[in-house]
Amino acid sequence: MLENITVKQLKEMSLKQLLALCEEARELITATVFKNGGHLSSNLGTVELIVALNYVFDFPKDKLVFDVGHQCYTHKLLTGRYEKFSTIRQKGGISGFPKREESEFDCYNVGHAGTSVSAALGIAKARDIKGEDFNVIALIGDGSFNNGLIYEAFNSLRLLNTKVLLVLNDNGMSIAPTVGSMHEYLELLSRDDAQKAKNAKHAGIFERFGFAYDGVYDGNDLEKMIAKLTEVKQRLKTQSVILHVMTKKGKGYAFCEENPEATHGISNGGKRETEYSEVLGKTLTRLAEKDGRIVAVTAAMTSSLGLSPFFEKFPNRSVDVGICEEHATILCASMATEGLKPYYAVYSTFLQRSFDEIIIDICEQNLPVTLCVDRAGISGADGETHQGVFDLSFLSMIPNLTVAVPKDVEEFEKMIEFSADFNAPLAIRYPRAGSRSFEPHTEIVAGKWEYLIKNDGNYVILACGERALSCAYDAAKALQQLNIFVSVVNARFVKPLDFGLLDGLIERSVITVEDNILAGGFGSAINTYFAGKHKEIKNFAYNDQFIPQGGVMELMEEFGLSAQAIAEYVKSNENR
Amino acid sequence: MLENITVKQLKEMSLKQLLALCEEARELITATVFKNGGHLSSNLGTVELIVALNYVFDFPKDKLVFDVGHQCYTHKLLTGRYEKFSTIRQKGGISGFPKREESEFDCYNVGHAGTSVSAALGIAKARDIKGEDFNVIALIGDGSFNNGLIYEAFNSLRLLNTKVLLVLNDNGMSIAPTVGSMHEYLELLSRDDAQKAKNAKHAGIFERFGFAYDGVYDGNDLEKMIAKLTEVKQRLKTQSVILHVMTKKGKGYAFCEENPEATHGISNGGKRETEYSEVLGKTLTRLAEKDGRIVAVTAAMTSSLGLSPFFEKFPNRSVDVGICEEHATILCASMATEGLKPYYAVYSTFLQRSFDEIIIDICEQNLPVTLCVDRAGISGADGETHQGVFDLSFLSMIPNLTVAVPKDVEEFEKMIEFSADFNAPLAIRYPRAGSRSFEPHTEIVAGKWEYLIKNDGNYVILACGERALSCAYDAAKALQQLNIFVSVVNARFVKPLDFGLLDGLIERSVITVEDNILAGGFGSAINTYFAGKHKEIKNFAYNDQFIPQGGVMELMEEFGLSAQAIAEYVKSNENR
Repeated sequence: MLENITVKQLKEMSLKQLLALCEEARELITATVFKNGGHLSSNLGTVELIVALNYVFDFPKDKLVFDVGHQCYTHKLLTGRYEKFSTIRQKGGISGFPKREESEFDCYNVGHAGTSVSAALGIAKARDIKGEDFNVIALIGDGSFNNGLIYEAFNSLRLLNTKVLLVLNDNGMSIAPTVGSMHEYLELLSRDDAQKAKNAKHAGIFERFGFAYDGVYDGNDLEKMIAKLTEVKQRLKTQSVILHVMTKKGKGYAFCEENPEATHGISNGGKRETEYSEVLGKTLTRLAEKDGRIVAVTAAMTSSLGLSPFFEKFPNRSVDVGICEEHATILCASMATEGLKPYYAVYSTFLQRSFDEIIIDICEQNLPVTLCVDRAGISGADGETHQGVFDLSFLSMIPNLTVAVPKDVEEFEKMIEFSADFNAPLAIRYPRAGSRSFEPHTEIVAGKWEYLIKNDGNYVILACGERALSCAYDAAKALQQLNIFVSVVNARFVKPLDFGLLDGLIERSVITVEDNILAGGFGSAINTYFAGKHKEIKNFAYNDQFIPQGGVMELMEEFGLSAQAIAEYVKSNENR
Repeated sequence: MLENITVKQLKEMSLKQLLALCEEARELITATVFKNGGHLSSNLGTVELIVALNYVFDFPKDKLVFDVGHQCYTHKLLTGRYEKFSTIRQKGGISGFPKREESEFDCYNVGHAGTSVSAALGIAKARDIKGEDFNVIALIGDGSFNNGLIYEAFNSLRLLNTKVLLVLNDNGMSIAPTVGSMHEYLELLSRDDAQKAKNAKHAGIFERFGFAYDGVYDGNDLEKMIAKLTEVKQRLKTQSVILHVMTKKGKGYAFCEENPEATHGISNGGKRETEYSEVLGKTLTRLAEKDGRIVAVTAAMTSSLGLSPFFEKFPNRSVDVGICEEHATILCASMATEGLKPYYAVYSTFLQRSFDEIIIDICEQNLPVTLCVDRAGISGADGETHQGVFDLSFLSMIPNLTVAVPKDVEEFEKMIEFSADFNAPLAIRYPRAGSRSFEPHTEIVAGKWEYLIKNDGNYVILACGERALSCAYDAAKALQQLNIFVSVVNARFVKPLDFGLLDGLIERSVITVEDNILAGGFGSAINTYFAGKHKEIKNFAYNDQFIPQGGVMELMEEFGLSAQAIAEYVKSNENR
């Protein structure tokens, strides 16, 4: 039934047909995610809710804004993307997140948490200004509900004098179980379900901000959801409503229901590699046994960041604040003012949220906080909103911050050891996983690089991080077969640069390689160092564009980072 | 009495003596601010509160964390900085904000809103981990209370399982009158003052998050404040408390009491210059009369940003969301998805808070939002936390974003006109005020520069913005006297660069000038453009360090931006 369905056809279906449609969607999502990777449990949990929303509202005239977007698969299936669903998260395929470019049914691109209420308010305000008439719905999970943006949006609801529907999809989880007082409050509301009078009294927080609160309802009960949404739709003319629904994360698939965190995101396999995050967890736990100053902070990603062993061993010295990246950053800075040694572990893309706090709270105060920047570089199938290709640029511009990039997991371990005695702001950026190892492993000294291959050839490749070094190293080895000798340097500190080593390269041709955009990154710093000094320089980095979804290796190659591209460059220039 | 006072002596004073001390502090603050500039009304309003806090608590053993820091002058006077108070906000003098480097009584540096509760929680958590015993107090104004960080911190209070005192200094203002539902809620609480029972019922929001709420009290009544704080101090062993006090912004100085927004910050004069913000307000208002798509958004700074005329003329198309920079950014992006033409005006330093939203919400969606980046470059007396010297770096690294820098107010006006028809993300960065004008004024075309001085000399200076161009132009004029002919280019788009013009400079020596840090900024982009092309390049920009307080011109000169430095460079290199 799902094939070629339109929202118009959907509205003509019987409940029985709709329920069958839900099962079909659930099966297709499960099968596809196990093939392509993606967000499984969150999408399984919301099938009925999304069907009900599409049944009751008139998309795309009405607007549905997702938060983060981990719940959008069913919506895609219902709105013209059944055919392409098998391509989801693949290069050239449809996105795993809402995408305006893909369909008029996706009205706002998302990927980072907490933006949906602000975006829904902006769309509703624009509607009012233009004098148009449609409904705006934000669909948000309780995990995102911890983010400060929610409060900022709530605070301005009355001010904006507009009307929106906020569907709060409460499954008790973000990626990890939801934490914090707002979560406890939502639990209180859901416990009150049997006693609506008491419930109404407790719902005061939302009413203070101008929302009518209505809940709690079973979001997996399609018939009730349709009835409730139909009723709420009428009320939206005169008031903004929070509709609080409970859904079962992983619904309909027993393994997911029992393992919602592990099945939130499914990887589509690939060869077994060592996770950098595992090394972080083990090493930090080992160091913390001897060093009571070490504390670890995360924003709702303890397990993915490898910190579960630390959190288990040192519950009093570890904090997961929920999806509150800015708060997490300030907690680290302030704990450091009291002599502690905080580690904030976070995905590169989400660290963007802490940019101001890294500058003002950590670096202006010159505090010994270590940023563990995971999933740096191209992150792959999640696409534009999740690529970690900006961090070298936005970190290396900040005064007082040292930026380190390990060449392999062994060096990463040494860098964590190094960080424990490093008494200033430090960022260490690394990809999800790696399989390479590069000799030698010399002692880590801030701002000091090392040669992996050293010879008298004209070209010297400066590369940072396992991926860039893999390209550089393999290019050098390939060129060696052609009797072209190229040196390779592990530029393991992007800031400060190894000025001593660079000074020795004045007469050589230099190539830079980084898994980051060119502007403001490693190559850019090298260009500035050599500016006006007569030298051949070639930068391998990503150009000025957002990088779409795809496999890590295929994207790196397409966007210019490969051993072959480097080798070709050297070959053609050596022969000039 | 204030001279050489210690907190120990303070605790031995009678109420009468303390009241006299308050008056002395008030007079000294008023006289000093009128001389040096600074934050007047906010500091006058909190004299009694700060005296009471210092009387009751044992600083520096106990820790007082300010929010933003516009209330810290009395604290400075009481804690060893009376002697240096006349140097406040001057080059080499004491800071107008809390500064750890200055005194052990300043435990956390601030400058941007909403950080105090997170920082207090971090310090308290560190105390608990270390097994120490002291009190941690956050002092926060109701303006900062709108910021999302507050919610993130509140949400984690129980999670962190620690105890802090939050003194909410409610004067109904941030810089502008406070807006939003939280403000209305605080008003409700203060109206309830006479009926404590009802009050206790209403205080539910704070209690949900684990705070005991106590309020509302008169923060200008020293005797009552001392008594109340003494009582609350005892309760901090077992619970976290929000103490809600009302103070009168500008208290004790009639003109300030009547003009709290105008006297929030006092400038210390200087010659009459044209404010870029005035031009923004006038031009945008004029354009909006013909173009119904134009909307304006600010975060609690309507007047300082020059937008009051727009807000008065188009109340339905203007939004001040309070100190919620991230939310403001998303509102703009989402309104743009509906075909509106949003302008977000903000100080450069505060735009750092929106970094992620500029990337994900505005630029990844390629939406026609215009960022009006005021107070860009060195901003002067507010010091490290307020310099706008990072924006060219963090903006020009973002794909899809065009970055423009007007050479004078006339060109700024033309750029705003240009922006109205520009259908993509655009940032325009400009300083507070200017007094120069540069001919010619050619048509604005994205990515196209213009020559201000063109000749056949070897050197070409590429400079962006009025300040950098002033240095460049004056250097060229001075060199002309010595028969050294130097061209000057108005590089009014930092992104994209004018590649056509740059291609014509391959044989010339290039100098770049910008009122921004070097890393990732304009000069860095030029260095990358010319990388490996044999050319002399010299960058004038700020080095990798935080720039302290001082006069704009004296700081620019000290940190390397002056006509003299440029002229000297050319002279010494021409003679080589």
